[in-house]
Amino acid sequence: METIKRAIIYDRSLNPERTNATFERLAEVLENVLNEQSAAHISKLLDLLEQPNPRNQLNEKQADKIIEYLDKIVLSRQQIQEIGEQLQLSEISTAEAIDIHQQFKIPVSHPEEDIIPVQGKGCWIKDTKGKWYLDMDSNYSATNLGMSNPEIALGLYNQANTLISMKEDRIQIARSRFLKEIHQMMPPGLDQFYWQNSGGEAVDKALKIAKAYTGTTQVIAFKGGFHGRTHGAVAVTWNKKYREPFGLDETGWVHFADFNDLNSVETLLKTTGAKIIILEMVQGEEAGNRPATPEFVNGLWTLAKQYDAVIIDDEVQAGFGRTAVKQGDWFACMSYDLVPDIMVIGKSFGGGYPVTAVVTKKKIGSKMKYGYDGSTFGGNPMAMTATLIATRQMREKDVTGNVVARAKQIKSGIRTLRETYSIIGTYSGRGLMFGFDLGSAENVQKVQSGLRENGVKVSLSSGSMIRFLPLTIMSKGETDFFLKQLEKSIKILDS
Amino acid sequence: METIKRAIIYDRSLNPERTNATFERLAEVLENVLNEQSAAHISKLLDLLEQPNPRNQLNEKQADKIIEYLDKIVLSRQQIQEIGEQLQLSEISTAEAIDIHQQFKIPVSHPEEDIIPVQGKGCWIKDTKGKWYLDMDSNYSATNLGMSNPEIALGLYNQANTLISMKEDRIQIARSRFLKEIHQMMPPGLDQFYWQNSGGEAVDKALKIAKAYTGTTQVIAFKGGFHGRTHGAVAVTWNKKYREPFGLDETGWVHFADFNDLNSVETLLKTTGAKIIILEMVQGEEAGNRPATPEFVNGLWTLAKQYDAVIIDDEVQAGFGRTAVKQGDWFACMSYDLVPDIMVIGKSFGGGYPVTAVVTKKKIGSKMKYGYDGSTFGGNPMAMTATLIATRQMREKDVTGNVVARAKQIKSGIRTLRETYSIIGTYSGRGLMFGFDLGSAENVQKVQSGLRENGVKVSLSSGSMIRFLPLTIMSKGETDFFLKQLEKSIKILDS
Repeated sequence: METIKRAIIYDRSLNPERTNATFERLAEVLENVLNEQSAAHISKLLDLLEQPNPRNQLNEKQADKIIEYLDKIVLSRQQIQEIGEQLQLSEISTAEAIDIHQQFKIPVSHPEEDIIPVQGKGCWIKDTKGKWYLDMDSNYSATNLGMSNPEIALGLYNQANTLISMKEDRIQIARSRFLKEIHQMMPPGLDQFYWQNSGGEAVDKALKIAKAYTGTTQVIAFKGGFHGRTHGAVAVTWNKKYREPFGLDETGWVHFADFNDLNSVETLLKTTGAKIIILEMVQGEEAGNRPATPEFVNGLWTLAKQYDAVIIDDEVQAGFGRTAVKQGDWFACMSYDLVPDIMVIGKSFGGGYPVTAVVTKKKIGSKMKYGYDGSTFGGNPMAMTATLIATRQMREKDVTGNVVARAKQIKSGIRTLRETYSIIGTYSGRGLMFGFDLGSAENVQKVQSGLRENGVKVSLSSGSMIRFLPLTIMSKGETDFFLKQLEKSIKILDS
Repeated sequence: METIKRAIIYDRSLNPERTNATFERLAEVLENVLNEQSAAHISKLLDLLEQPNPRNQLNEKQADKIIEYLDKIVLSRQQIQEIGEQLQLSEISTAEAIDIHQQFKIPVSHPEEDIIPVQGKGCWIKDTKGKWYLDMDSNYSATNLGMSNPEIALGLYNQANTLISMKEDRIQIARSRFLKEIHQMMPPGLDQFYWQNSGGEAVDKALKIAKAYTGTTQVIAFKGGFHGRTHGAVAVTWNKKYREPFGLDETGWVHFADFNDLNSVETLLKTTGAKIIILEMVQGEEAGNRPATPEFVNGLWTLAKQYDAVIIDDEVQAGFGRTAVKQGDWFACMSYDLVPDIMVIGKSFGGGYPVTAVVTKKKIGSKMKYGYDGSTFGGNPMAMTATLIATRQMREKDVTGNVVARAKQIKSGIRTLRETYSIIGTYSGRGLMFGFDLGSAENVQKVQSGLRENGVKVSLSSGSMIRFLPLTIMSKGETDFFLKQLEKSIKILDS
C-alpha cells in the first residue's frame, strides 16, 4: 500500500520529475488492473472523496482516504503492486494526456495517440493501459540502444551532478574523452567534428560548411530525399508540401536531380555550376527505403571529382549500423567503400539524448573561421557523455553484425510469408530499414492495427508501403516474434 | 588510496562516462596538489613505469605500481583526497584536452582555453588546475539554475531509466506534466507550444509558423539583432560576417530596420509589404545589451496592428527572468506589458538540457497543418523532465525577484566604482544582462584577465564593452564578491 501512496503523493526527493496523481488516472489504473470489478470501487471512491475534480492533483488527505479504502477491499499482493507501478509510471490519465496535447501543442504533425508509452525496456514499451509492445519504429532511430538505458542514465546523472552544460567554444573534458574513442568507427579521414542538437540543424550547418569551403551556394539535392526541417534542411528536401508553405520551394539555390541517375546529376553540374551535392545513401521516409546503386555512387564520386564538387552524405537515419551490409559498416557509405567529403550523423548517436554532428576532412573544416558559427549546446558535456557511452555500447553489442543477421532473418521470413500471402508486394530497404508494399494505404492501416493488437507497435508508412525501423539491438527471438505477429495480421487481410 | 586507484582505473558500474587516467594527467594533478615537491615524484614514477606513453590510458598493473609508490611517500590525508578528487573529475590533462580540441574540432569559434572546467556548484566552477571561479557568463544563460543541478540530474536519471526518448508526434506523459504547470509563467494567451532543441532552430521554426500564418515570406528584422545560426535564423541576424560566407546576406526576404526607430519600421512595412517582424526586446551580443524603449515597443505593436503584421519576440537570451524589471517578469515582454504573437524561448528553459520552444496563440498555431513540420527530439520526455524541474525551481527560487535585487546592487556598485575609476564608461543593460565601456578592446582583455586571476570567469565582450551574463540565481554575497574583484581588476588599469 505504501507504493500506491507514494505513487499518488509523489516524493520529490526521489522523483522530482513527477506531480501528484489525479483521480481520473487512479480510476483508469484500477480499471486496467481490476477490470469489471473496478466500477463499483471507483464509484465508492468518488463518493468517499465527495466527487473530486477528476484532473486535479490529489492531496495528502484524499490519498489517505483512498489508501484506507483500498486496504479494506480484497486485493492480491500482485494487484497492489501492479496498481502502484502503473500509477508511478503515469499520474495523468490517457484521456487527459490526449486532451492536453490537442489543447496546447501546435499541430505540426499527425498526433499518434493509439499507444501512449510510459516505460521502455530494450525493444519493448509499455503503455498507459499496462500493455507491452515490441517497438518497430525506434523513434526514427533515436532509441536504437534501448527504449531506456541504465548506463546512459547513470552517466547523465553523474555529469549533471558535476557540470550540467558548457558552451561550444570552451574546451572541455567530456568531449575529449569522446574524441579519443570515436575514431575507430569513422570512415578514414573524417575526423573534424562540429556538434549540433538535431539532424535538421546538422544538415543546415553541413550546408554552411560546404558553402564556406567551395565559396559557392548552388546545391544539388535528390528527388525523394529528406534532410530535415530548418530553412536550410527543408530547402534541400524533395517533398514540395514541406517547402511550399514557407516560401522555400523556389530558393534559387537548390536543384533536384533524379536518384540513381548519373546523367541527371551531370546535367545539373553543367548547367547550374553547383559545387555541392547532398544525398542519403539509402533514401528513407519519402522514397520507401531505397538504397543507391553501387554504379550510381561510384559514378557520383567520379563526377564530383571531375567537377570539383563536394559530397555531403546525410547518414542521420542510415548511420550507426542501421543499414550495415557487412560487420563494421558503421555508416552506409562504408558499405560502398567510399568516403564522403562531409557526413552528417545523428539519431542513435546519443542513445536517446539529442545530439548530432557534422563530420568532415581537415582541409574542408579548416575553411570555417572563428565567428562563422557558434552554439550554446553543441557538444555540451551531457551530450558528449551520452555519445561516449552510446557508441561504446554499439561496438560492444556488435550492432553492425546484429543488423546483418537480423536483416537476413527478416528478408527470408518475409520471402516465406509471400509464398502464402499474395498481398505482400515488393520488399525494399537495407539492413534494419525496410518495408514492403501492401497494395493500398488502407491495407497498411489494417496491418498496422492488427500488429498493434498483437503487441507490435508500428507507425511509419508512405502510401501503400508499410515501413519498419526497429531498434538495431533487436534479438533473434524478437525478430521471430515480429514475423509471427506479422503473419497473424496479414492473414486476416488475405482472407 | 582507494579513491586514487578508482580515479586511475575507472569503475564502469559507477562512472560509465569516464575512461582510465593518463600518466600526463596524473603528473598534472600531483603538480596541482604537491607543487614543487611533485617534480621528483613524477620523475621517479616515470622510471618505475618505464616511461609510459603520457597520453595512453594507464592499465591495472601500472595503477598498482603508482599506488604502491604513493603509499610510501608522506602525503597528508587531505592531499590524498585532493589528488583523488582532481583525477576523478578529469583523467585527461589540460594540455591534451587543448590539443584534442585543436586537432578534431571544426574551428567555427574562438576556442576558450584559459579555464577548462571540470566541476560546477551553484554559480561556481572548478577547473583542471583545481581552482574555483565565480562564473559570470552562465553559458549564454544555459546554466542559470546552477552549473550542476542535483534535482535535474535525478529527474533525468529516472526518466532515462524509464523511457529515454519519444518522437514529437507521439503523445506523452512527461510533456503533459510540463504543460499542466507552465501556464503560470506565460504571458496571457500564449499557450500553444512547439519544442525544439536549440535557440536558432526555434527561431527558424518561429519564422516558418509566421510564414504559414500570414501566407507571406518577407520579414523585418533589426540592426544589432542576433537570432542564431541556422539558414533561417542567421538570415534575420544583423552581423553581415555571419551571413556573407554562406550566401545568406542577400536572401531577398529579410529587411533590416533601425532598432528603437519607428519610422524606419513603418517605411519597410510600406515598401516591402512584410507582415512579419522579429526582434529581441533587449538586444544582446551584437548591440551591447540594449533594451528597447517603451515608446518604441508600444509604437511597434500599434504599427503591427495597423499593417496586419505578426511580431516574433525572441526571448531566448532575455527570457526566464534575466531581464526582469519587477518580480514576475518571466519574459522581457512582460516588463513592457505587451504580449507578442509568437515568442521563442530557450537557454535556461531546461536548466542545462538542450530544449527550446516556439510559443504562440491558438489562432496562429492552428494554421500549421499535419506534415508542415516534424521532429525526432522536439519535446522528448527527457527535455520535458528538465523543463518541468527547471521552471519549478525558477518559481521557488524567485528568480525574477532575485534578478531585480541583484541588478540594483550591481548598478549601484558600479556607479560607486565609477566615482573613483574614470575608466568605467557608459553602463548598459537590463537585469542581469549588463556591461559597460572600458575605452578599448585591450582594456577589456586586461580587466578580464585580472578578474580571472581574482577568481572570476568572464569571456563575453563586444569591442570596448565588457559584458556580463551571470547566473540568475547569483546571491547577494556573490555579487559583493564580484564587485570587489572587479574593483581590484580595474584598479590596476586605472593606475
